[in-house]
This record gives sequence, structure tokens and C-alpha cells, in this order.
Amino acid sequence: MAKKIVTFGEIMLRLAPDNYLRFNQVDHYEATFGGAEANVCVSLSNYGYDTSFISILPNNDIAQCAINTLRKFNVNTDNILRKGNRIGIYFCEKGASERPSKVIYDRKGSSISCAKLEDFDWDKIFDNASWFHLTGITPALGENLPNICMEALKKAKEKNINTSLDLNYRKKLWSKDEAKESITKLCPYIDILISNEEDAKDVFGIEAKDTNIDDGKINVEGYKEVAKELIEKYHFEKVAITLRESFSANDNAWSSVLYDNKNFYISKKYNMHIVDRVGGGDAFAAGLISGFLDELNMQDIIEFASASSCLKHSIQGDFNLVSKEEVQSLVKGNIRGRVQR
Amino acid sequence: MAKKIVTFGEIMLRLAPDNYLRFNQVDHYEATFGGAEANVCVSLSNYGYDTSFISILPNNDIAQCAINTLRKFNVNTDNILRKGNRIGIYFCEKGASERPSKVIYDRKGSSISCAKLEDFDWDKIFDNASWFHLTGITPALGENLPNICMEALKKAKEKNINTSLDLNYRKKLWSKDEAKESITKLCPYIDILISNEEDAKDVFGIEAKDTNIDDGKINVEGYKEVAKELIEKYHFEKVAITLRESFSANDNAWSSVLYDNKNFYISKKYNMHIVDRVGGGDAFAAGLISGFLDELNMQDIIEFASASSCLKHSIQGDFNLVSKEEVQSLVKGNIRGRVQR
Amino acid sequence: MAKKIVTFGEIMLRLAPDNYLRFNQVDHYEATFGGAEANVCVSLSNYGYDTSFISILPNNDIAQCAINTLRKFNVNTDNILRKGNRIGIYFCEKGASERPSKVIYDRKGSSISCAKLEDFDWDKIFDNASWFHLTGITPALGENLPNICMEALKKAKEKNINTSLDLNYRKKLWSKDEAKESITKLCPYIDILISNEEDAKDVFGIEAKDTNIDDGKINVEGYKEVAKELIEKYHFEKVAITLRESFSANDNAWSSVLYDNKNFYISKKYNMHIVDRVGGGDAFAAGLISGFLDELNMQDIIEFASASSCLKHSIQGDFNLVSKEEVQSLVKGNIRGRVQR
Amino acid sequence: MAKKIVTFGEIMLRLAPDNYLRFNQVDHYEATFGGAEANVCVSLSNYGYDTSFISILPNNDIAQCAINTLRKFNVNTDNILRKGNRIGIYFCEKGASERPSKVIYDRKGSSISCAKLEDFDWDKIFDNASWFHLTGITPALGENLPNICMEALKKAKEKNINTSLDLNYRKKLWSKDEAKESITKLCPYIDILISNEEDAKDVFGIEAKDTNIDDGKINVEGYKEVAKELIEKYHFEKVAITLRESFSANDNAWSSVLYDNKNFYISKKYNMHIVDRVGGGDAFAAGLISGFLDELNMQDIIEFASASSCLKHSIQGDFNLVSKEEVQSLVKGNIRGRVQR
Amino acid sequence: MAKKIVTFGEIMLRLAPDNYLRFNQVDHYEATFGGAEANVCVSLSNYGYDTSFISILPNNDIAQCAINTLRKFNVNTDNILRKGNRIGIYFCEKGASERPSKVIYDRKGSSISCAKLEDFDWDKIFDNASWFHLTGITPALGENLPNICMEALKKAKEKNINTSLDLNYRKKLWSKDEAKESITKLCPYIDILISNEEDAKDVFGIEAKDTNIDDGKINVEGYKEVAKELIEKYHFEKVAITLRESFSANDNAWSSVLYDNKNFYISKKYNMHIVDRVGGGDAFAAGLISGFLDELNMQDIIEFASASSCLKHSIQGDFNLVSKEEVQSLVKGNIRGRVQR
Amino acid sequence: MAKKIVTFGEIMLRLAPDNYLRFNQVDHYEATFGGAEANVCVSLSNYGYDTSFISILPNNDIAQCAINTLRKFNVNTDNILRKGNRIGIYFCEKGASERPSKVIYDRKGSSISCAKLEDFDWDKIFDNASWFHLTGITPALGENLPNICMEALKKAKEKNINTSLDLNYRKKLWSKDEAKESITKLCPYIDILISNEEDAKDVFGIEAKDTNIDDGKINVEGYKEVAKELIEKYHFEKVAITLRESFSANDNAWSSVLYDNKNFYISKKYNMHIVDRVGGGDAFAAGLISGFLDELNMQDIIEFASASSCLKHSIQGDFNLVSKEEVQSLVKGNIRGRVQR
Repeated sequence: MAKKIVTFGEIMLRLAPDNYLRFNQVDHYEATFGGAEANVCVSLSNYGYDTSFISILPNNDIAQCAINTLRKFNVNTDNILRKGNRIGIYFCEKGASERPSKVIYDRKGSSISCAKLEDFDWDKIFDNASWFHLTGITPALGENLPNICMEALKKAKEKNINTSLDLNYRKKLWSKDEAKESITKLCPYIDILISNEEDAKDVFGIEAKDTNIDDGKINVEGYKEVAKELIEKYHFEKVAITLRESFSANDNAWSSVLYDNKNFYISKKYNMHIVDRVGGGDAFAAGLISGFLDELNMQDIIEFASASSCLKHSIQGDFNLVSKEEVQSLVKGNIRGRVQR
Repeated sequence: MAKKIVTFGEIMLRLAPDNYLRFNQVDHYEATFGGAEANVCVSLSNYGYDTSFISILPNNDIAQCAINTLRKFNVNTDNILRKGNRIGIYFCEKGASERPSKVIYDRKGSSISCAKLEDFDWDKIFDNASWFHLTGITPALGENLPNICMEALKKAKEKNINTSLDLNYRKKLWSKDEAKESITKLCPYIDILISNEEDAKDVFGIEAKDTNIDDGKINVEGYKEVAKELIEKYHFEKVAITLRESFSANDNAWSSVLYDNKNFYISKKYNMHIVDRVGGGDAFAAGLISGFLDELNMQDIIEFASASSCLKHSIQGDFNLVSKEEVQSLVKGNIRGRVQR
Repeated sequence: MAKKIVTFGEIMLRLAPDNYLRFNQVDHYEATFGGAEANVCVSLSNYGYDTSFISILPNNDIAQCAINTLRKFNVNTDNILRKGNRIGIYFCEKGASERPSKVIYDRKGSSISCAKLEDFDWDKIFDNASWFHLTGITPALGENLPNICMEALKKAKEKNINTSLDLNYRKKLWSKDEAKESITKLCPYIDILISNEEDAKDVFGIEAKDTNIDDGKINVEGYKEVAKELIEKYHFEKVAITLRESFSANDNAWSSVLYDNKNFYISKKYNMHIVDRVGGGDAFAAGLISGFLDELNMQDIIEFASASSCLKHSIQGDFNLVSKEEVQSLVKGNIRGRVQR
Repeated sequence: MAKKIVTFGEIMLRLAPDNYLRFNQVDHYEATFGGAEANVCVSLSNYGYDTSFISILPNNDIAQCAINTLRKFNVNTDNILRKGNRIGIYFCEKGASERPSKVIYDRKGSSISCAKLEDFDWDKIFDNASWFHLTGITPALGENLPNICMEALKKAKEKNINTSLDLNYRKKLWSKDEAKESITKLCPYIDILISNEEDAKDVFGIEAKDTNIDDGKINVEGYKEVAKELIEKYHFEKVAITLRESFSANDNAWSSVLYDNKNFYISKKYNMHIVDRVGGGDAFAAGLISGFLDELNMQDIIEFASASSCLKHSIQGDFNLVSKEEVQSLVKGNIRGRVQR
Repeated sequence: MAKKIVTFGEIMLRLAPDNYLRFNQVDHYEATFGGAEANVCVSLSNYGYDTSFISILPNNDIAQCAINTLRKFNVNTDNILRKGNRIGIYFCEKGASERPSKVIYDRKGSSISCAKLEDFDWDKIFDNASWFHLTGITPALGENLPNICMEALKKAKEKNINTSLDLNYRKKLWSKDEAKESITKLCPYIDILISNEEDAKDVFGIEAKDTNIDDGKINVEGYKEVAKELIEKYHFEKVAITLRESFSANDNAWSSVLYDNKNFYISKKYNMHIVDRVGGGDAFAAGLISGFLDELNMQDIIEFASASSCLKHSIQGDFNLVSKEEVQSLVKGNIRGRVQR
Repeated sequence: MAKKIVTFGEIMLRLAPDNYLRFNQVDHYEATFGGAEANVCVSLSNYGYDTSFISILPNNDIAQCAINTLRKFNVNTDNILRKGNRIGIYFCEKGASERPSKVIYDRKGSSISCAKLEDFDWDKIFDNASWFHLTGITPALGENLPNICMEALKKAKEKNINTSLDLNYRKKLWSKDEAKESITKLCPYIDILISNEEDAKDVFGIEAKDTNIDDGKINVEGYKEVAKELIEKYHFEKVAITLRESFSANDNAWSSVLYDNKNFYISKKYNMHIVDRVGGGDAFAAGLISGFLDELNMQDIIEFASASSCLKHSIQGDFNLVSKEEVQSLVKGNIRGRVQR
């Protein structure tokens, strides 16, 4: 029987101008769906796992399209509650060269943001589950969400389910202080912590030395220290940090480190020509979870996670539409973009 | 100097699948803008008048696109306030044959819905204005809107500006009782009332005899009685009623009556093959206002208004993109769709 | 527990020029999926039933897209076998006015056409099933298909599952004689037979009097005789016949008759402005099955089936993407294409 | 050996908004090519004849696309001269319902408009030709065109080639007086004259009684008189007149009459739901020429020509992309838009 | 009150295949509008200035679309005269890798090319203006244009308005000798001269040493000499030169120098991955004018102008659709294409 | 009289998602046509030669579109036989960054694959021909194809026509052993052999030293040895080898070597930013043939062939749509992607 992963969060309608057009140039939007936790589900579903996405969506046709889309990629949607007023929306303008991408959120008042503690029966939700993943976005979505996340995590640990949290700090949802307070409370129930090159500083104030994000310069050694400090302070089992170097909106480098409280494992670095970078971190999380569930060794896990994320950057939309075989093939290094006939 | 019309209401992002596709068939939406009062402005601007649209929009790029679109059609946007959280959105699926069109509103919490009395300086807004038009949607948008509409109408009458109101009852915004209460209070300040074949019944409980809307059967005589009763009860100067006969989502007939408290004027009836029927009523209101401003005789006014609306049905999107000459040509009856080379 | 319908047949990639363009005008094809039995599944899934589609598809990405599309509409795909060389394809050019639609089949050598008796475990497939539906296309697909269909029908009857067959004669797949021979053998295991205005003549040589298909003239009385003769000869429980009157590629009338070996039930006739007529018969079959499963009375069943099919004609693609509520609303007759806000 | 038809005129870039959008709604134009004489060539090429299009086009990539398009439909382009400044352009907005289509010409200064007498070696051009067709547009294109047309017609008659002229009066190219003067001079060299319901009046002042074009009412009897008078005055061998009744931009009726100086032949009348009416007259001319070349009897000729034109109205763009078999099938009357599988 | 900039020139319809397709691959063109001086207006309008575009356009719908587009970006169009035959057109095929972009002009006989001296009332046009900008294209458009430009510049200097000229040599409009003669006469009235790496050589024969344009190699020192010589000979107040290094159609480097007759200021060099390079020089001119109007210091001016142009290269179409804040952010160097959420 | 090249092979319908989308993201496919030998024909036709493509296609509209497309590019299609069941299809998903492109063939049972010896009259086909080209794909298409190729080559040599073969090994069509056996038999009739960096190894087992294709590292010296060995063993007159270095799906380097049994000629190496790499080898073959037909010297031939192929990589679709002048301009090295106005 396939292992089952549960994620919990918001799935939004994503509206994006085609190609590199700006908002004020278009009279059509590409309409897809995405959101950090849903993205992780889809990616893991594509890797062959059973997945279940937990959320609340309104009872209208647009929300139904979101559910249909998840179903298309074989994500179980039976535990998505239908109530409330609206599905969250985000507008996404793709940057090019020196012009950065731009995201406009319109998620206030979405169904999930009005969630109540009694909306979720975690005992039932976690039936047969092997892993529970969420990100720092979920507790930021609404008043009751920190408590709901706490309850879910407690229940997960009670049932011996592995847990992971991707920090994913969003400054438009809450302040750094609010984030720190809420997430610190969740930490005791988290096995694997995932952060990018900025989040640990934003949420916990733990900063890598000799790194200037705006310059695109990344100092791996500094991030080893960050990982160490995170485990010392919050007692995670393992910490993974993704390291994006941004040369332009089109060209990034991507690598990652994994620290298991003993050794540091550093992945290969990929130079990526980007198709769509939104969801790149979620593909990393999915790759990491897949590696752990497959019980790979630490180095292989971090390589699989990095390759997973690298391939996502070549795919339009939030979802990471690659198979496990495609990731493995990149890890083995024998592809280089040659045509597969 | 051109006469200036002011309208007040909400402009929304309109997201629509192409052609006759259903929501769950598309991965792109046509993205245009519209809303009853903005539609009237654009139509009057195309007829050569100065127009000014009054609203509140958030300070983001999507709202800026709405403003740019109004500017494109030469509507003055200087008095659109920029604040609040979001621009209202509506999703619009076009019906075909026996399948009706479907509109999903996502306008809760829009910037205009949070308007306050002190947001508008009507004295300044009405500077040089000849006409003030609004619809029954505007007072339904939020808590303070009934009072704001009242203040605007009072100021308009104080400045001797003509006023018109299109009932436009929307059951998703308020109950019939709420609508009746609010709109009844505005009536003393309204010169011209516009209703469609259903609104007078929904808002005032005044119903045409021998008419079954769902059947598509319309009895003009019954609507004469409706117009009479409206003037008797609420003392409007004139009442115009549009009469849509719906044979299918593709084919409607369209005519209208005008009552000036003395005589009834009945327009020619058009059999329309519909491209987009949203905004058809707004094009009628714009045609009516244009007729009054041009001081046509009553019969010519109702003919111009009906032809204006008929042509709108041939145009995709909310906006009525025809010129006064095109409407006049249809009124004269010498076109019948022959190519104009 | 929802009732479960099983269908068995071929799902094809459907390639179609946009709008009314001809094949030699386009450099893009709309790429969707469809096939008579899959269409019935999707329609019943949209009406709220559990459905399972049985077929064979090759192990490539294009076939995976077909499966993803079925999943999107909540059709169970667990019993679709993956083997063989190719997915069938059909090219579909939409007619307009006096120009007929044109279908080019490219389904030779498809995976399902090479099916073997041992590929299917009907006992397992029919677990918990309430209904088994297939069409006259399936036995025509390949050498072993008549036997496979026979085995499936026998097993269905053994398990007390209702069975229905839509004649769906396709002259490019087999001759009339071949069809007659094969289908006659299946008849003893069929409860409900469905035919259109042409099939009964093509397959069984049973012809309605005073009807000229090419003229578009349909004589209902003649079809009563056809239904009667079908039951007399082949002992079906019930026979339903759909009656398409073709005025042009854009405009058809649609009605149907149901004969239960006692009385004739004739549905309302719909005048349809067509968006896409492919799949119209499959939507009728789905509506009929839904009516029987809901245990409606005979008149309500034939009305539901006709309205189901009528609405399909307003929808692009093979699939009937309407809900049970939408069909019921049309049956009640209170719609006429007015906007649903 | 296939019979060869030569036509002479202008081929233009046609820029058109998609669907029923107006010019000010689009940021993309459909870019195809067309022009009366080129349209006749393509249609005849599709009917299986050898065709040769004579024109002048500039030496740039856009003109090369025009030539490639003609080649695609197997029209010989070897005698298209490459010189001059530009290819003519026309903008075409499709009407709907009561809104007429709109054509904006931008053909001033096009290469063909600057043609000189010495640019064409008609002796060589007409090698092996059976038919020469031109329209009243060609002599209107530029200063030297009347003389060039005259020389071509003289040479054609000298070589015993059949000639036909479609009046095609374009008021934006020349006045009625200019047209009358120029075309009257060409008449002695014309065997078959083709006119629509308006042209004979515009060019020769010969008007049908009891017909009001703007009303859409056509009186066939009146057009018999027109045909008679045309032959009496100008001594054509035969006259064909097309009769368009315009109910709306979407719906027209189409029929035609042929007079051979003895009898009148009246075609079946088609009620057409229009996809694109531009080029409808050219498809009629092509059908007529095909009928004469195939030596059909007079009634069959006018039926083939009318059916040819009827089918063109179902096709997007200037070109009539149907086969001779498709026209014959419509003439036989056994189609009515049923799917051809 | 915002400062007002006036520009004078031609706005054209720009027809372009999508993406990297060649002319002979497409049946649709992207239809936008552009032209050097209009581009400068739109860019400055986006930077918050009042702008007014002066031109002549025909009285048809396509020209109206050009005006609507300018209005959309808040450019004042009140002084655009409507007369003449046609709007200029240019076809634009985007290059890729080693394949260069290709521009085909079809602007002969455009309305502006037939301009007469009396068409413009410069006194009224320059009312309240702070800056007048034109390019070397405008005097090349037609017979009377050199005199009109001269008159405009004289009036501008008379009214103490700053003037700038971008050389913009177009070999398809006039010869180098004609350009030199005409532009030399305008020089006494020009404050700021703008040239790219090629124009000074083409127009004035002043060439940078050690630079081979075709190789993509640029020697900044050589351009200092060019700037010096330009001021010595023609007495401009300041000279700005843009330096494009072309590695491929997709990748260019961009920098610029400014000489104020005392010091040289050299901007940062940007390595750009290009979306659309047309209009890059115009965005530079707009940035330069903005810098001067904001009274920045010389180094900040040349940095703002270069960053303005760099960002334009990331935007499809002629127009530079970025805000002043976005340019300033790039100048500060803290972006590198990271997502702005 | 222009020299005439004959090629023989399969032309397929190519279905491709737009841009970089994956198969499961799209509901539209770009529909073009291509195939190695047809690609060579189109490229040579664009270089100004007479070309004739020999194949078999079914008698349906889709195959007719393939023929129309060839005609559009002036390829003679008179010797394409129409019979059999289907046109071959291939699905093509474009890779990006580290994600490779993916090709799915659906060519089994295509008309050409069922070709018989008597289908071709090579004596007639080769009338006036100067060159005969085919690739290793053609003999792999079906049972009789090796013999047909043999007969064609023998006839070509008999008529003193130059012959070339591009190895083009396709592992999905046959095994390496089958390929070796079949192609070895054809070798005596081949003048010019063309191979890419992999084919010589796959077909003949002749491998370059110190080269790792998967790494993207190419050792030119090793390929000299390969060329030498090929001529020694199989007695070709000349051998050309293309050398693709694959850095990513977006970025490749391209160069080539030519060995004339005396000297080695190595082309310039191009760093390409890829639009579409399918057909790159065919453009090389076309360039090579063009160089030989133009009797260039060896170095110029290999430079022309490499530049031809380099430019193809900038063009969407299989076909190389550039002119001889454009290739020559790149060979001269004076372009670098600057706009050609």
C-alpha cells in the first residue's frame, strides 16, 4: 500500500498574464490553481504517493474547478470542506531580466481564513497517514488557524506521523513578531524544518553571515551555522535550507543543505533558466519528503530534493509536474536537456 | 462645451471563459472590466459626452488596469479614490441555447463596499455636471452606501442636475425588503426611473399582469400599468421600462416603453442574435440619458435608447462600444447588417 | 452509498480546429478526449453517481492525459489497463449552416482494439455495480471485442446488474451485416436498448415510415412502430429512440420516445442552437440511466433524458458538463436562457 | 489536361479581429489574404482546375506570405510580378445581429495600383487558358488599370478565351460615373456579366422594381428585367445576378438568377447562418465558371453557383475552401448539416 | 503642477508575429501601437509627468485605436489632428539567437507624412510645456516635415522650453546626406542631443575609434571623443550616447555616457535577457528627460536613464510600461529579479 | 534551370504544446508538419532550389494539409502517392533548462510504412534531378522500405545523381543491429554520409574517444578519427559530422566537421539559445547539399551547413525557414542579432 501524505492549507486561483506581459498589457489571464501545501500534494502525487489535501473552499463553480484540478493529479479531495464566501486569488506577473516578478494577493475573507477548530476531524483525516506537512502560511491565514495547526500537529505526533514545516514567511499576512510567536509554539511538534535563504532570519532572527540576498551572493558556510542554531534552539530532528542565488528573473542558481544534527549534506548546485519559479520551494519540500519516505541516505535525499526543485523551475504554474523517474534521471546527471525520443 | 454626466458605483474585474465554454473547461479567462454605472459612463462617452465615474478602488495594479480601461474610452477618472483592500470581481459564463448564463459575484470586501460618507466631496464632483445617474446596485454595496447615495442625490438636486436611477435589483446583495426600504427613500430625488421587466416587481412589488418572465412572454399593456403606478406612488417625472423576451440564451427580443405621466411611447421591437447580453440594460440607460440631453422628442428618445441597447447585445464585454451615428443609423432602419465598406 | 455505473469502450484524443475553421485553415487543434462510453461515464459522474470506465490505453503521456481528464470529472480509472501501442484519435471539424461537420477517425491499432478476453476480470470490475452500459461501437473495435462484450454482459446479468446498449452504428468500423450479426447475439443480455433515428434501420433493418432523414423530417408515429418491433423481435425490456431533426449544422430539433412494452412516452421537443453536437446521444443515454436509477416515472425519465441531451448540445467537447440540478431546471421549463446571477 | 482559368486583380492582407470583437477591443488581428479575383482563383483551384493569378506585389516578406498562401491552395503564382512599395491591406470587423460588418481599406499606393501597360505579357499569360475572369475592382485600382484590363480582355477574345466580369462596385475606389465610363468600354469583350442586387444600379443605373435593399426585401421578377435590359444594352452572352436578402449580420438568404437571352433560371434559395460573408460573391462567380467549364445545363449551373456561394458563407476568411463534391452534395440537397463520419 | 512634456512624431500600428515566429508561420499578428516620440510620451507619462503627443492621424477606427491606447496611458491626445489617408504601419519579426529581428516599414503616404506648416499651432501646443522632444525620424517623414520641426523648435526656444533630439537615423527614410543636411539645421535649437552607438557616425560622420558594431565590441573611450566632437561642432548643451553591445538577438549589454561639456558620466552596464528591444532607446530618452526635470545630478541622471532603458527591454511592445519607483529600485541595485510579493 | 533535389521519407503531423508546457497542461496542440526528409526539402526550397518530396499519404483532409504545407514552401508534391490508412503523428514536448524535450511517436501503420516496391517509378521521379537525399529513418519505417531505398539509390547512381544519407538512428524504429545490417547494404550507393555525434556509434559502432555525450563534452579530434574510419570502411566520398554540445535544453553549442578523404574542415562553433531544436540536423544536411550544388570550397560548405543549422534552432517547428542570404550573412559574421530595419 502506498504511503499517504496529508497537507493542510489554502489553494488559490492564480491569475497570470501570458508570457512576460505586464498586468496592464493583457485582456486574458492564465487561470490555474496553486498554494504551497497543495503544490506539495500534487508533487508527491506525481511521485506515486497517496496524498490528501485538507482545506475549506466555498460552494461555487470556481472552487469546484480547484478541486477538479487536484483530482486530475490524483490528490484526494474528500476532506475539503465546502463553505464560506470565496476562494483566495493571487495575481502573478512574471518578471524578466532585471524586472522582478510581482505577486498581488487577494485572499482576504477566503473560506479557509474563516476556519474554525471544529471544522476538522484530524483523527479521521490522519487515518492511515504517514506524513503531515504544512507551511508557515497556514497559521497566518486567519484568527483560528494557529490553534487549528497546533491541534493538527499534536494529533499527528500522537499518531506517530512524521511532520514537516516549511517556514514560508509572507510579510503581507503577518508581522515577523506574529510569525515568530505562532511558529515557535508549533516547533515542538515538528520533525523536519525547511527554510529558504531568507525565512530563518525573518521568522527566528537567525541570519547567515557574509550573505547579501539582494546581491544574489550566498555563503553556504553561513547557512550551516543557521541550521545548527535552529536545531539547538528548537530541537528539530533535521533542518533543510534551500539556497537560491538570483542573477536575474530568468536565471537563478539553486542548491540546498541538510543537517541531521550530526553532519551537513550539501547538494549539487543547478544553474537554471527559469520558466516559472513559483512553487520551487514546494517542489523541494515534496522531494525531501519523498526521499525520507523512500528511506534514502541523507546525501541522496538532499540531491533528490534539489533536483525535484530544479525541474519545477522548468514548468509553468505552481504545480511540479514531473515524475520520480525524471528527478532520478537528473540526479544521475545523464540528461543535459537532450531530446528523449 | 459638452454636457457632463456623472455616475457612481462599482467597477469590477470581469473574468469570463472564451466563447461558450463552461468554467470547468478553461485555463484562461478573458479579463475585462465592467459594472452598471461604469458601463453607462463608457456608453455616454462613446456618444460624445463628457463623463466622470465616481468610485473607490484599491491601490494596486489590477485596479489601475480598470482605471486605464476607463481612460481608454475617455471617461474622466480623477475622482476615483484609491484605498481599501480589493477590487470586486465577477465571473461570467456565457450561456447558449437552453443553457443560461451564469454569474458568480466575488465583490465582498471591495474598496467601494467600505466607502464612508466623508470619502466624497459631491459639491466638487458635480462641478459643471448636467446629469447624475446611479443604479440600485450602489446603495446595496455596503453599510454606508444608502446614506452616501442619498447625500449625492440631494446635492445633485440642489445643483439642479438631472437624476436617473436604474432599479437593477440584485438578490445576492440584499433582500427585496431591504431594497424597497432603501430605494424608496431615494425616490424623491429621482427624475427618471428605469426598470426592466422584473425589477419593479422585485423592489416595489408592482407587477405586470399577464406576463410570465420564465416563459419569455411579455404583455406590453401590463407594463403601461406598472409605469403609471410607479409615477403615482413615487412621483417620478418619467418612467422607462425595458422588456426583454428571452427565447433562448442566444436569441432575445428587446423593446421598451416610456411614460411621461401623459403618454406612453413604445419602441420598435428588435429580434437579437446575442453576442453578450451583460450591460444591455446599461446601454439602454445611456441611450435614454443621451436622448434627454439631446432634447429629442419622447418617441425618438425611446427609439434611441432601444437601438442603443440592441447594438450593445452584439458586443462582447460589459461596455457598449458603438457611436451615436451607429445608433442613429439603426433607428433609421436602413442597415440590416449589410457590410459597410 | 451512491449507485455505481460501469461503462466499457474506447476513449480517444479528439483534435478539433477552433470555432468553425476547416482543417486546412488551422495550425492549432483543440485537444480534448471523448468516446461514447466515456462520455456516458462523465455525464453520470456529473449527475452525482459513482462511475467506472473500463478500457485499455497505452503507457504514454497522451493516454495519461486521457486518464487525468476522466479523473478530473471524478470517473474511477483504476480498471483501465495500460498496454498496447496507441490511443485512438479522431479529428473533428465543426460544420456551420449548410456545411456538415466532418469526423475523421484514426483509431486503427489502438490499444483497446487489440484487447483479449483475459484482459478483463468482469467479476471484480462489476463489484458493487448497479448498471452496465455499452454501445454498438465497442464490439466493432476489434477481433475479440464481440466476445469480450458478450462475456461482460453475461457476467452483468449473472450479478443482476441492469444493462443498456446504445446502437451507435459506425459505418467506418464495420458493415451493416457485421453489426447485425454481432449485436443480435448481445441482445438477449440487454435490458434497455437505445437507438437514434437512423441506427435501428442500419443495424436491424427496422425503418420508420414517412421519415426522410436527409430532409430533416421526422415522423414520431413511425418511430413508435420501430420501438414496438424492436421489443417484439429482441425482447428488450424497454426501448428509447432519440429523434434529431437537422435544419442546418447550427440548428436542430431534439426529442425522444420511450416504449416500455405497454405505453409510449414522448418528450418535449427542443429547438437547439448548437455549440457542439458530438456526444448528444451519449448525454441522452446518461440521462436515461440516471432517470431509471432515480426510479422516476416513465414520462419523467424521457423528459430528463431529453433535457440532458439538449443541454449537452450547448457545450463544447464530447463531455456533458452539466449538473443534475441544471437538467431538472430545464425540465421544469422555467429557464429560457436568462442570466443566473 | 485540366482547364486553366486566369484572373487578374489585387490580393490584400486582411486584418480582422477575432470572433465578433470590434477594432477597439483587440490586440491581435487574424491575418489572412484575399481579394475578389484571388478568391475566385482559390475557389476554382479547390474545384480541381488549373488556375493562375496575375498581379503585382512588392518584394517583401508580407507579400511573400500572400504568394505562399496562394501556392498552398495550388494557385499558380509564376506570373505575379514583384515590384512597387506595398501590399494593399484591408481591415475587416465582423458584424453581429443588427450591427453591420465594417471594412476599412488601406490599399492606396499598393504595387498593383501603380501597374503599367508594359508590366504584363498577356500573350504569354493566356497560354493554354480557357477562361479569363476579372471584376469591376481591378480597373478602379489605378490610373493605368482601365487600359490594362482592356488590353487583357482584347487579347483574351483574340485567343478565343471565355471572359467574365463581376461588377463589384466599390464606392471608395471611384464614383458611379467613373465606373460606368470605364466598365462600359470593357463590356464588348465580356461574355458573362455577374452582378449582385445592387451593382447594376450603381454602375449602369439599371434598377429592379419593388425592391428595397435596406429593408432586405428582394423581388426576383424585378431582377429578370434588370438582366434583360443588361443584355439588350450591352450585348453580353449571359447575365447572372445574385440576390442577397439581409435579415441581420448573422442571417441572410441567398439565391440567384441566370438569363441566357432566352430563358430565366432561378436557383433554390438558401437561408444561411453566416460565418463570414466576405467572398460570397466570388464563390458564386467561381461556381458559375465551374458550371460553364463543366458544360452543365443552365439550371444546374445556377444551382451549382448558388450552392458554391452558400457554402462559402460558412467559412472564415475570403477563400472558399470547399471541394466540388461538397457543392454537388448540397445541390443534391441531402445534407442538412448532419455529421459526416 | 506636474511638468509637461511635448513630443512630435508618428505613431504607427505595429504588427508582430507572436513569440519568435517568422512572418510566414503566422495567421495572427499582435497589434499594438508605437513610434519613437509616442514611446517617449508614454514612458514619461508612466513616470508621472503630464505629456502631450502631437501628430496627424486619419479619421478611421484604426487610428482611433492608436489614440485610445495613448489615452489609456494618460497621454494627452487633444492636439492630434485627424485627417489624411492612413496610419503608418510597421511589421516586426522578433529575432532569436543568431537570427536578427526584422522590421518592414509600410509608412509611405501616412497622414503625418503629408503634414503642412499650417497644421500646427505651436504657440498653443506649447502652452505650459517644460520640455520638447523629437527624434531624427520626424523630419524624415515627408517633404514639409523639416520646416515644421524647425518652426516647432524655434517656438520652443522662444518660450524657454528645454529641447532634446534623439538622432534615430533610419536609412529607409532618407540618405545619410539628407539626414545630415536637415538635422544640422535643427542643431542650434537643440539643448540635449541623444545618439546611439551608430547614429552619430551615420548622420554626422563622427565615429568612435576601436569599435566594431557588427562584432558587438564597444569601446567607451571612443564614444567620449564622439560626444566631445559633437558639442564642439554643434554646441549642444549636453550629449548622451547609448552603447548597445549585441551578443545575440536575445542577449545584449546596455550602458551609456553623458557629457556635459566638462565631465563624462558613465552608467553601470546591464546584461539583459531581452523580451523586446524595440523602444529601448526611447526609454533611455524618457529616463534622461525625467532625470533632468527632477534636477538629479549628472551621474544619477545617466543611471536613471540607463536603468529605464534596461527595464524596457524586459517588456513586450514599443512602450516602456514601468513606474519611476521600479526604475529607482533597479538603480539602487537591490532587486536582481526576486519575486515582489 | 534550377537544380532539383529529390528526398524520400515520411512527413508526419507534429502535435506540440505551446511554449514550454507539458502534455498534461494543455488543451490545445500546435499542429504543424515535419519529418527529416521533408525538412531537407523545405530548407532547400527556401534556398532557391527545385525540390520534390516523395512519400505516401492517406486520402484524407489531414494528409491534404501536409501536402498544402509543402506546396506553400514550393516543394513539388506531384509524386506523393495517396493511399493507405493514416498519416504518422508525433507528439513533441519542448524541454527547458534541465528538463529534456520529449518525443512520442505514433507512426505505426502509416501509409508510407506499408509502401510496396511497385509504388514508385524512380526513373520518372528522378527525371532532371541533381541530388537524392534520404536518412536512416526511411529504411526503418516498414518491411519493404529497405528494398525500396536500395532500388531508389541504385537508380539514382545509374542516372549519375549525387546521393547523401543522414544516419539519423531512431531506437524506437529498429535495433542497432537491424540498422547496421540495412544501412550497410545501402552504403555502396551513398556519396556523402552525414552523422551526428551519436549516430556513427549507434549504427556502425564507430565511437569518438574522450567524448561523453551525456556530459555535453565533445572532443573534435575523436570525430576526425570517426570520419576517417567511416570512409575507410564504407568508401563514402565525403563524411560530415555534426557536433552538438548540450548545456541545457535551452542552450547548445553547434559545430561540424567535414572530411573529404584528404583534409578535415572544421566549422565555427555557435552558442545557440534554442527556440526549437527539432530539424536542426536536417537544416545541416540541406546546407551541406546547397554548398555542394553551389560548388563552394570545402571550408565554405561546412560553414554554410553549420550556419544553416544554427539559424534553424531559432525557428519554431521542423522546417528551416531562412533564406540563403540569411545564412550567408551569418557566415560572414556581421549580424549578431541586431535589428534589420
